Amino acid sequence: MEIKIDEPFAAVQWHNGKLRLLDQRKLPGELVYRDFDSCAEVATAIKQMIVRGAPAIGIAAAYAVVLAARAAYRKSAADWQSLIETALENLDAARPTAVNLRWAITGMRKAFAAIDGDPEPLLLEFARKIHAEDIAANHVMGRLGADLIASNSTVVTHCNAGALATGGYGTALGVIRTANKRNLLTRVYVSETRPWLQGARLTGWELQQADIPVELVIDSAVSGLMKDEAIGWLIVGADRIAANGDVANKIGTYSHAVAANYHAVKVMVVAPSSTVDMQIASGQSIPVERRKAAEITDINGKKIAPQGIAAVNPAFDITPAELVDFIVTENGVIARPNAEKMLAFFGKI
Amino acid sequence: MEIKIDEPFAAVQWHNGKLRLLDQRKLPGELVYRDFDSCAEVATAIKQMIVRGAPAIGIAAAYAVVLAARAAYRKSAADWQSLIETALENLDAARPTAVNLRWAITGMRKAFAAIDGDPEPLLLEFARKIHAEDIAANHVMGRLGADLIASNSTVVTHCNAGALATGGYGTALGVIRTANKRNLLTRVYVSETRPWLQGARLTGWELQQADIPVELVIDSAVSGLMKDEAIGWLIVGADRIAANGDVANKIGTYSHAVAANYHAVKVMVVAPSSTVDMQIASGQSIPVERRKAAEITDINGKKIAPQGIAAVNPAFDITPAELVDFIVTENGVIARPNAEKMLAFFGKI
Repeated sequence: MEIKIDEPFAAVQWHNGKLRLLDQRKLPGELVYRDFDSCAEVATAIKQMIVRGAPAIGIAAAYAVVLAARAAYRKSAADWQSLIETALENLDAARPTAVNLRWAITGMRKAFAAIDGDPEPLLLEFARKIHAEDIAANHVMGRLGADLIASNSTVVTHCNAGALATGGYGTALGVIRTANKRNLLTRVYVSETRPWLQGARLTGWELQQADIPVELVIDSAVSGLMKDEAIGWLIVGADRIAANGDVANKIGTYSHAVAANYHAVKVMVVAPSSTVDMQIASGQSIPVERRKAAEITDINGKKIAPQGIAAVNPAFDITPAELVDFIVTENGVIARPNAEKMLAFFGKI
Repeated sequence: MEIKIDEPFAAVQWHNGKLRLLDQRKLPGELVYRDFDSCAEVATAIKQMIVRGAPAIGIAAAYAVVLAARAAYRKSAADWQSLIETALENLDAARPTAVNLRWAITGMRKAFAAIDGDPEPLLLEFARKIHAEDIAANHVMGRLGADLIASNSTVVTHCNAGALATGGYGTALGVIRTANKRNLLTRVYVSETRPWLQGARLTGWELQQADIPVELVIDSAVSGLMKDEAIGWLIVGADRIAANGDVANKIGTYSHAVAANYHAVKVMVVAPSSTVDMQIASGQSIPVERRKAAEITDINGKKIAPQGIAAVNPAFDITPAELVDFIVTENGVIARPNAEKMLAFFGKI
């Protein structure tokens, strides 16, 4: 299968020697692309959530390393490999929870260690390979995940684990896309995903574009849906998976997983193996980013909570492995994950 | 204890022969009062959520009946009791889930059946009695509920079951106010309560005014809080309680109750007996209002979901009695409610 990595609407593109990102904060109202030609700018774009989604962040970071190498090599053809370090550390610190960012930077570091001469062509080739492999992995996961789904299934998904969150096609939405092509789905409910509303803005838009029957609900209505309707699956992505199968994902995932457990709805986590962090024993050790209170006290610049109220705003939560029925990766499916199965599957790092 | 029913900031007031409502859609940014002198206008105000909260809606409706009786009596001193009916039916239909609306209208109907001559003075006296009794009931519930709470407790509440939702003092927030006066509370987490954000806007504001330590979280973060912190209680109000103890309350309550069950957090529902509907066997028969999609696809007039997306927007959900540890009413506390205990407590209607 030929993988096109510069599809229209792709969230991450390499364009005229620059990194082009679709500004996901503007969707679905506006399609705005922004071009970046420095690594520092990309780090800021990641922090600001112009690009988001663990795999997409990883791919953007890989291209950012190309930009960093170009700048460092222009400064000094001899010392660029040491000159680049500050930029890479800054990039690595942009967001703490998703491991794909670190994974991509580590991969790129290995690639440039062997380079002699201008690093840009070889590093660009490597970044494009990371990008293409991500898309290919999503298609494989789409098939593996859809294989688990019976016909006439109704699915809940949360946040956006779609084409926009990845190199293309999507992880959780990749499974949903493939299942829909196989006519297995009755309906997809997407929860809006406060505070950034990626479910409403991004997944709603992606599924609408793909002509997949989608209905939007608020996050807190999902439990009631699971009680009142025949929901088959909760299907979500992941920002990091620990060595025991615990899953860090967008805030609200744990709430949905607890509800799924109570209502005997099956839970499928779909993520490439770049999301698995075998160095971290359990979800308890995964750093969960806490973002500023204003993200929940203000909406569109208008204050919706009283001035000065304290607010806790974790961007992610941890779903323990015992609430997960399946982890779907491009290398295969792990049912009822635990430390033993994860080790057998991924090996030690 | 003397009950003042026209306290500053009271959500429902009788003022210069009109019903004065605090426009709760404008809080916490603006304190806007609106005066109403017709029953039809009050019905619209209830639909538009200028006044909300089951007990407050009931009190507003009682005053609306005074306005309806005045108008009907002016039209015909002889036939006003039949002329009033259309207005009362319209008022009764304003919102379907909370039973206090119907309860208040039924009470007022009984009161005016015996009236000879100008109904206004007597009906006003009866409406003010409903209002004052609601506040008194809240203070009693405050004490009964706080009696259940141990020291150093952290509490989660949802939506607004405070002074703004009642005649004054509040149901769930009445318990929280009393518990705070007794120095039992470490902290109150309030979930923002999409889509109308009554938790952020109203409860955040009320608790801040009352100097009670409050932190705001998004609805979907509550489950994670219950996992990671020592949360003692989920304390909420109710819009209707069925004869088996099932509770209709603001959407998201059920989600929180399922999470509470999973994390062994106790669930307290605080509501006056006017909220109990012994005519309805279980929560399955309680009509749940579905409101328009725009309430979740748009925020502050700005579209946040793609044009034309389908959305399901139930305003309430049903929490089955088996997830409720205590129902606190002004007449006493029902632990682990079920049909038998409810019947023994409230009797047949």
